[in-house]
Amino acid sequence: MSSQNPSASTPIILTGDRPTGPLHLGHFVGSLRNRVAYQDTYRQFVMLADAQALTDNMDDIGKVHRNVVEVALDYLAVGIDPARTTILIQSQIPELTELTFYYLNLVTVARLERNPTVKQEIILRGFERDIPAGFLTYPASQAADITAFKATVVPVGDDQIPMIEQCNEIVRKFNRNVGQEILVECKAIVPEVGRLPGIDGRAKMSKSLGNTINLGASADEIRAAVKQVYTDPLHLKVADPGHLEGNVAFIYLDAFDTDKAGLAEMKAHYTRGGLGDSVVKKRLEGILQELLEPIRARREEFAKDRGQVLQILKEGTMRAREVAAATTDEVRKALGLSYF
Amino acid sequence: MSSQNPSASTPIILTGDRPTGPLHLGHFVGSLRNRVAYQDTYRQFVMLADAQALTDNMDDIGKVHRNVVEVALDYLAVGIDPARTTILIQSQIPELTELTFYYLNLVTVARLERNPTVKQEIILRGFERDIPAGFLTYPASQAADITAFKATVVPVGDDQIPMIEQCNEIVRKFNRNVGQEILVECKAIVPEVGRLPGIDGRAKMSKSLGNTINLGASADEIRAAVKQVYTDPLHLKVADPGHLEGNVAFIYLDAFDTDKAGLAEMKAHYTRGGLGDSVVKKRLEGILQELLEPIRARREEFAKDRGQVLQILKEGTMRAREVAAATTDEVRKALGLSYF
Repeated sequence: MSSQNPSASTPIILTGDRPTGPLHLGHFVGSLRNRVAYQDTYRQFVMLADAQALTDNMDDIGKVHRNVVEVALDYLAVGIDPARTTILIQSQIPELTELTFYYLNLVTVARLERNPTVKQEIILRGFERDIPAGFLTYPASQAADITAFKATVVPVGDDQIPMIEQCNEIVRKFNRNVGQEILVECKAIVPEVGRLPGIDGRAKMSKSLGNTINLGASADEIRAAVKQVYTDPLHLKVADPGHLEGNVAFIYLDAFDTDKAGLAEMKAHYTRGGLGDSVVKKRLEGILQELLEPIRARREEFAKDRGQVLQILKEGTMRAREVAAATTDEVRKALGLSYF
Repeated sequence: MSSQNPSASTPIILTGDRPTGPLHLGHFVGSLRNRVAYQDTYRQFVMLADAQALTDNMDDIGKVHRNVVEVALDYLAVGIDPARTTILIQSQIPELTELTFYYLNLVTVARLERNPTVKQEIILRGFERDIPAGFLTYPASQAADITAFKATVVPVGDDQIPMIEQCNEIVRKFNRNVGQEILVECKAIVPEVGRLPGIDGRAKMSKSLGNTINLGASADEIRAAVKQVYTDPLHLKVADPGHLEGNVAFIYLDAFDTDKAGLAEMKAHYTRGGLGDSVVKKRLEGILQELLEPIRARREEFAKDRGQVLQILKEGTMRAREVAAATTDEVRKALGLSYF
């Protein structure tokens, strides 16, 4: 319980997910397993960003609502511990929208349009000229999320670093405007193991691409997925030398196989020829089954009592809201918006 | 007290001011005296838009804070009655920022950029490429203010009609998205007597132009201002025929002189020649002194007890917040953002 009463010097971390679908191995590698580690050394806030998810899901509102509990189940299943990590639902903390509102005055339209992450996402989502205003302005919302909890550390993919820079610009501009050091700048940390490719070899594992292995996958689903894993298209006969580059089976083994010596040996064998894909995939399947079996079991256990999951979310959200409300109160006072 | 428990068919009106300076005769003619009349037939909310005022006053935060009570004093002085009108402070109702946040997803950047009122204001304020995001997006904030109170009627200048259209677009889009009739469309009403020119003859009476007569002006200030009032620059000798067009003295008389027959006679005399400006100004000064004397007296009376004024604002804000919170609750539920 020490992280709930951290000393002033305990770094504060904010991280989270848009609840638009179940989490998968890509999330596990890129963020979830780090969060399990962080909760011992940081005061950690993990946010279910349902309000942000609506930005481009206003046409499928139910999806976001449904996935809040699903993603929370994934968190609990991988070992994020609500006693050491504060799990919160973004939309239930209206102070975050209040901070967003004020931060919108501290950033120009031109600056938002220049933000490389925003630019890239606009292309990715096919918005072009029909960009919802809430999408263009989401760096202000993200700055609200980060600063509300006075987070000092924010784990992001390297494509998200411009968002952190923009957050810090807002922080400096606010503090300068009010002549007080109220908001706190944060640092990005980029996880060592970055993005996991999809089972089809595409750069990103993504629900919308249909190339994921979900954390809640059944043993059969894992088996079927591993069979589809992209390897070396030139490795036609067992005797042929195989290539490791772009070979998803080996990329996954690099990410999950703890027997590094055995893996090195297998790679050498594969490269010189004489090792079939089926042997590699068998090793991979074994490892994934072993990794996911306890996660699935814990997930099923928690899923039996959704009321308890909601209770965990409620308690986390209430705890988080107290922190956000205190910051917002400081912000409001500094802006002279305090009367009674 | 009937307006506090109106029947379902009582029209609801939302109006207000950005508290950036004392109110003047232009406000009196364009809005304040109408509000005094509206409070008998409408359920009226009058908003001190301090949060919105910050949009382009982040460099002078104290100004907004100071002027909240000053503008409230103007309201009370002209006869806005807190028992029949709910006076509220925008920033103290965080639900308004929450609604703004969701509405930002319902309007595109291109649509905001096309809004004629926004376009015009951007030029007026000299923003050009350095438009604060909060300024571009203020139609979403205004839609939040209007819809939070389910206002059906919004008095605006004719230059503000596009804002009302944009609000109604958001209302329709929201209701369509959630498949429920939660938000209510509103109608603009444009007051008969529109904009009062400044004493210098410029089109708008405005603090920043220094051409106002404030509601709290002393008898000496009124006298001095009337002396400066722009008349007919070609009317050099008393015997000369004078012109009424653009003649601020007569525009003010049209707005405030209740003796229409006497005024018509004076106009005829002025037009055919033989009537000096000093006579016209004497009539105008008398009328303005008579109009402003009781307002100033009431203003001074209320100003003696600022604690009481704050109490009035607090009570109004609390009453308004209940209404806004109920709407926001409906909105949140309709968006599926309700869990506990």
